[in-house]
Amino acid sequence: MKKTARGKNAAPPCPINAALLMLGDRWTLLIVRNLLFARATGFNEIQRAGEGMATNILTDRLAKLIEMGAVEKRPDEHDGRKWIYSLTEKGFDLAPILLELSRWGVKYQKGVAPDGVLEAYAADAKKFLASLRA
Amino acid sequence: MKKTARGKNAAPPCPINAALLMLGDRWTLLIVRNLLFARATGFNEIQRAGEGMATNILTDRLAKLIEMGAVEKRPDEHDGRKWIYSLTEKGFDLAPILLELSRWGVKYQKGVAPDGVLEAYAADAKKFLASLRA
Repeated sequence: MKKTARGKNAAPPCPINAALLMLGDRWTLLIVRNLLFARATGFNEIQRAGEGMATNILTDRLAKLIEMGAVEKRPDEHDGRKWIYSLTEKGFDLAPILLELSRWGVKYQKGVAPDGVLEAYAADAKKFLASLRA
Repeated sequence: MKKTARGKNAAPPCPINAALLMLGDRWTLLIVRNLLFARATGFNEIQRAGEGMATNILTDRLAKLIEMGAVEKRPDEHDGRKWIYSLTEKGFDLAPILLELSRWGVKYQKGVAPDGVLEAYAADAKKFLASLRA
């Protein structure tokens, strides 16, 4: 981190900045999206969901997500050489950020959210978020 | 944009990805935060709110925000050499993303949101968002 004009300790820490620093670039959130909405669980599934992503990027960002406690992995019981990835509570709690990005994207950019997702979220956010964890 | 394993046209465009591509790095959202919550209007105010940011970064990201139609500028009537920056409707519509980032940051990272902001948003999101525009 470079020092800024104000000096690094001038302002109290901002949770928005803390979250953005933790999340890093867009790939981190796209991996969470794939785990959450595409129900991807394996490395290859996560990689191929949505736009797809380069192997080295997925490897790096998955490691960061595990390090920050948003994703956990366990061995695939059907194939001991593979891992199954899943969101922790901290990872599921990123869902509202993704849903608001989706809402803004649908309104102002391009793209279509999965059928009914934004409607269900708008109608009853708590209920919809609980259903994602199910 | 590099091509990915799936090819660039394999999946329908995702609004989350579209929004993340548009927003770019964290500085864009921190500028919106400063316009929205710190009520900054001038270049120097925006620069000094929160953590502060480098002049070249602020100049570049402000231009991008104006180009995408999320921020507009008009001459400062008290000083013709200066500009007043403000959020457009598209910019105000980024507020829920910032608020959800803030909620996640407060819960899992560090930092404290401004007094009452997250409580007011949780109690009545529509009312709170309308008050931000006032």
